[in-house]
Amino acid sequence: MKIDIISVVPDLLTSPFSHSIMKRAADKGLLQVNIINLRQYTTYARAQVDDYQFGGGAGMVLMMEPLVNAVEALQQQTSYDEVIYLTPDGETFNQPMANQLSLKNNLLMICGHYKGIDQRFRDHFVTKEISIGDYVLSGGELAAAVLTDAIGRLIPGVLNDESSALTDSFQDNLLAPPVYTRPENFRGWTIPNVLKSGNHQLIDQWRYEQALERTKTRRPDLLDE
Amino acid sequence: MKIDIISVVPDLLTSPFSHSIMKRAADKGLLQVNIINLRQYTTYARAQVDDYQFGGGAGMVLMMEPLVNAVEALQQQTSYDEVIYLTPDGETFNQPMANQLSLKNNLLMICGHYKGIDQRFRDHFVTKEISIGDYVLSGGELAAAVLTDAIGRLIPGVLNDESSALTDSFQDNLLAPPVYTRPENFRGWTIPNVLKSGNHQLIDQWRYEQALERTKTRRPDLLDE
Repeated sequence: MKIDIISVVPDLLTSPFSHSIMKRAADKGLLQVNIINLRQYTTYARAQVDDYQFGGGAGMVLMMEPLVNAVEALQQQTSYDEVIYLTPDGETFNQPMANQLSLKNNLLMICGHYKGIDQRFRDHFVTKEISIGDYVLSGGELAAAVLTDAIGRLIPGVLNDESSALTDSFQDNLLAPPVYTRPENFRGWTIPNVLKSGNHQLIDQWRYEQALERTKTRRPDLLDE
Repeated sequence: MKIDIISVVPDLLTSPFSHSIMKRAADKGLLQVNIINLRQYTTYARAQVDDYQFGGGAGMVLMMEPLVNAVEALQQQTSYDEVIYLTPDGETFNQPMANQLSLKNNLLMICGHYKGIDQRFRDHFVTKEISIGDYVLSGGELAAAVLTDAIGRLIPGVLNDESSALTDSFQDNLLAPPVYTRPENFRGWTIPNVLKSGNHQLIDQWRYEQALERTKTRRPDLLDE
């Protein structure tokens, strides 16, 4: 899979993709992430890419021309399954969307900054608008990183043990059960006995009950879906 | 405000805090973000910080000892308003929570990795569990970055124009209206005439109507709150 990300602050995204699981995905050749500097594609003086909004008001808006130049240049190299704009008013990202997007070949993500991007770009070039949650960020960069991480780890072979992702929260509309590791006793706080029983049927049942209980308590809405 | 973040992959978080608005917040002395390497606090051989989970199953779990050592050492220096664990089964982060947390002085964030952290740490040391959305990430690092960005930009003085954050999506349970910038005409796509009218009352009314319409279409749930 290839993910191209267009940003005004490309350097902001260097470290998240050069460590841990995202680095492993890249090293294995399973996920290629390219960060593209929007300023490369402007013809305005001083690499200008944004301007004040029509009608007045605080906050700068990314202009049509650099965005369109960038997307059209990239589309000559790659046929994208989706041109995604990260925005708080997009469709709320969730695990089923991550599963679905992990099956695509090529994704292009556009990061807004400050007040966002010219609406005409959204109308004519964006195929999917995604929000990572009901809050506002400085720009789309961290949202693009979150999307890439959530999608990338689902690509077969990226996680060391593929069964790992299947037991995550949300994969079966349940939150994950509690986990414990060594030592058994820490300052008098011990682990549930069942986990030491060696009886895998009992353990699976306990985990299911814990997951169900936690979901009922914390996120009953997930059980209605 | 000070935000301390405990992570197993601290280098993953270098670039998001050294650019754009988060860098400006640091330069102005308004937000101090420290990334703490959990491995500094382990007494196990080879800087081990995680182990297999009791009861079997895929995925590693962060151990009690390094986490407790780290938190207790940091608490001797700083009195934290909240010890936050980033986890998909936590309370779902949103703009009201961002507003609230932006009023705190000191926050400690714990990033899980792989399968999460020992439940006993959550039971005895964590004061607030937060999820940035219904999806699973490789670790809590990007979630901590998202939280820090969403909170940090709300600290007075961080954004250049303070009114900027007030007109964002979610601040009044409405999505933001469309924005447009130069040129007025791009490939025949023009901007709404009202934005050129110079009549600020009309423009404000148009923006409100657009925000309401967009919220009705995309996120009717926000209007019920």
